[in-house]
Amino acid sequence: MSTRVVIIGAGFGGLACAGKLAGSRAEVILIDRLNHHLFQPLLYQVATAALSPADIAEPVRKIFRRHGNIRVMMDEVTGIDLGRKEVWLSIAAPVPYDVLVVSTGSGYGYFDHDEWARHAPGLKTLEDARTIRARLLKCFELADLTDDPAYREALMTSVIIGGGPTGVEMAGSIAELCRWTLAGEFSRIDPRQARVLLVEAGPRILSGFPEHLSAYAEKALANLGVTVRTDTRVTDVRADGVSLGDEFVPSGSIVWAAGVIASPAASWLELHTNRSGQIPVAEDLSVPGLRDVYVIGDTALFMQDGQPLPGLAQVAKQQGQHLGKGLRRRIEQGVALPPFRFRNRGNTAVIGRHAAVFDFGRWQMKGRLAWLLWAMVHVYLLVGFEKRLLVSLQWLWRYFTGARGARLISAPLTREQAHEMSDVAAPRKSGAMGRR
Amino acid sequence: MSTRVVIIGAGFGGLACAGKLAGSRAEVILIDRLNHHLFQPLLYQVATAALSPADIAEPVRKIFRRHGNIRVMMDEVTGIDLGRKEVWLSIAAPVPYDVLVVSTGSGYGYFDHDEWARHAPGLKTLEDARTIRARLLKCFELADLTDDPAYREALMTSVIIGGGPTGVEMAGSIAELCRWTLAGEFSRIDPRQARVLLVEAGPRILSGFPEHLSAYAEKALANLGVTVRTDTRVTDVRADGVSLGDEFVPSGSIVWAAGVIASPAASWLELHTNRSGQIPVAEDLSVPGLRDVYVIGDTALFMQDGQPLPGLAQVAKQQGQHLGKGLRRRIEQGVALPPFRFRNRGNTAVIGRHAAVFDFGRWQMKGRLAWLLWAMVHVYLLVGFEKRLLVSLQWLWRYFTGARGARLISAPLTREQAHEMSDVAAPRKSGAMGRR
Repeated sequence: MSTRVVIIGAGFGGLACAGKLAGSRAEVILIDRLNHHLFQPLLYQVATAALSPADIAEPVRKIFRRHGNIRVMMDEVTGIDLGRKEVWLSIAAPVPYDVLVVSTGSGYGYFDHDEWARHAPGLKTLEDARTIRARLLKCFELADLTDDPAYREALMTSVIIGGGPTGVEMAGSIAELCRWTLAGEFSRIDPRQARVLLVEAGPRILSGFPEHLSAYAEKALANLGVTVRTDTRVTDVRADGVSLGDEFVPSGSIVWAAGVIASPAASWLELHTNRSGQIPVAEDLSVPGLRDVYVIGDTALFMQDGQPLPGLAQVAKQQGQHLGKGLRRRIEQGVALPPFRFRNRGNTAVIGRHAAVFDFGRWQMKGRLAWLLWAMVHVYLLVGFEKRLLVSLQWLWRYFTGARGARLISAPLTREQAHEMSDVAAPRKSGAMGRR
Repeated sequence: MSTRVVIIGAGFGGLACAGKLAGSRAEVILIDRLNHHLFQPLLYQVATAALSPADIAEPVRKIFRRHGNIRVMMDEVTGIDLGRKEVWLSIAAPVPYDVLVVSTGSGYGYFDHDEWARHAPGLKTLEDARTIRARLLKCFELADLTDDPAYREALMTSVIIGGGPTGVEMAGSIAELCRWTLAGEFSRIDPRQARVLLVEAGPRILSGFPEHLSAYAEKALANLGVTVRTDTRVTDVRADGVSLGDEFVPSGSIVWAAGVIASPAASWLELHTNRSGQIPVAEDLSVPGLRDVYVIGDTALFMQDGQPLPGLAQVAKQQGQHLGKGLRRRIEQGVALPPFRFRNRGNTAVIGRHAAVFDFGRWQMKGRLAWLLWAMVHVYLLVGFEKRLLVSLQWLWRYFTGARGARLISAPLTREQAHEMSDVAAPRKSGAMGRR
């Protein structure tokens, strides 16, 4: 009887683990709530209308269609029975496992203010990206319709909360959208006047990078017209704006990119976690005290040289590959799992069309060349030949024209939306619009 | 003072009309509920995961960005004051007009059964296409999860109601999705066994085409595995299936492609319409009895040689071009509007990867060559260089591989959805899934 490995989550970690077990003697079941693997590092480009959702997502079934030993299930995990070694699902019957791999990633935490989520969506799924894109574009459409200057200014102000790579990338991309793509397309507003505010609670943005790269990123963002506010805490988020201490910033589009917390996998396993919800794992990625349970990626707390590994795609991917290879050798040859060690391939953040930063540990890179390297690496990493080709073509096109192809608003503006965004300055219906 | 032309609707008619007025002495205001022009003839490809929404949609502002005399407004029309010559909007203040062009298209009518719309969405907007795509793909995922054979069969049955071009194209494309794209990707079901049913109330499908092309289309659909049922009336539509007279067909994905009715523009104008909601127009596309009001496209009832023109993209486009040119000459030179005459450029419907029909009036075409012509014409017609290139590349790729790039489900399956689709055969939770 073959050993059954059940992997929960088809992100970078789960996908890499399943990939290394493809064609092995193990029977693999890969479970995800959705039907696609998402190339999350480019999700901000969907949120800012540069790429289409399908450009950065690949059906999991398609990836493994040639591998008979991998079964894909689209279902939601509701719990795990550690005694009977079963995974409980929302729709299908419970799935027994011999080995369990948990790679369920992370989400955004709102510091005990879950009511903020509605007004300031985070950027984790395609649905999030579509929501943010529609809100951003609708703000400009509304700004073009209104006669109220205060309301217009609020609509043309975007606030991004959190100065990590996602926040920096969103701020830069929104600024470029206003300065290059939308500029000149409106009759009554000038999108180049739009305000983009990046708010960071700590003393500098990109705190995971060396200081001189943070300083460079701040300068590059300023060049794009982004206002960076460090040492600034968000005290309230409402439909019509953000409170920064005593100051209220009216804003129509707010994006949350702070306070990452791990998926709730720990509660299935009845485990204690650190403050970020991560599960401490041993050197071989197993969970101490549990039998045949492994945790990888953002959900795992892995200590290396006295430091926890950061929540990066490359960490998840390397852990998945390592674990998949290890499990294969254990199942086929009875070899014990070797310890995992992360090798930094370069941590990166992109600021705009010509600016990026790279941190390889011993040396760093920034500017135009870093941007080129960033673009090449990301095109290469995208799963599947067709996507690589199409995305490269779109990038080249955009590079030369500044155009963005995916500027779609799929639902009409409603008066309720217009009101919701502004308790202070509701759009006025009185007074016909004068002839110009 | 310049003459202000207000155009409602940025479909084929409105866009063509505005295009002919670009750079003229007229002041043009183009109003649409959404921000993009949709290339509707390819919408069925979005609904069946072959193309992305952005591939067939173009922001209206982008199209007219170089034309200072055209203002684009994204807003919803709530009424028209014919006395004061003003258009009332949902959000912005009323817009006065000198000349009004109504090109608001059509939607689906459910023969006084609006409650069917929820279970059998029509295919008019990108949102519709996304809904249909998600439902179709979710059915296969659910079918793979369930242990109940009756429920599985229902999930793997698609019913398309209405045998016009849209119904035929949907049925063919769904059959190909099952036979080529999804085949071999599931462990517990065989998508090639999926049932696709095309239901038509009249005696033949494609009733707008000559009889021998209808017969060919029926044969080509049968080759793809589609069951065509003519002379068959739908008597009920529920969450879990469709009633055809006494027979109940359990089905998880139902698509409505019958009973086109014009947009409610007639009620704004306080006019009587025909049964399809269309407004009768004079030879020059003006509305008899109203001052400076023109109606074009699906909303207009235009009689030519004793016959009403069909609701086709090319009719709307030709009417828009004709009216735009005419208005321009009237405004700039005081010339009266000439009468409109439709020239048939060829009516077409595509059945599958190698089959299409073309009707040019005097002669007809069908089969592989018609498919090639159809593909070339549609690539050429797509707005904008980038899209044309990308879409052609995707089509070529799909042609050789049978792959589909946009197979995305953005929201997880819920137990409620599973139950809703089947009152008869709910998925059972009892009995753990056995080892294979």
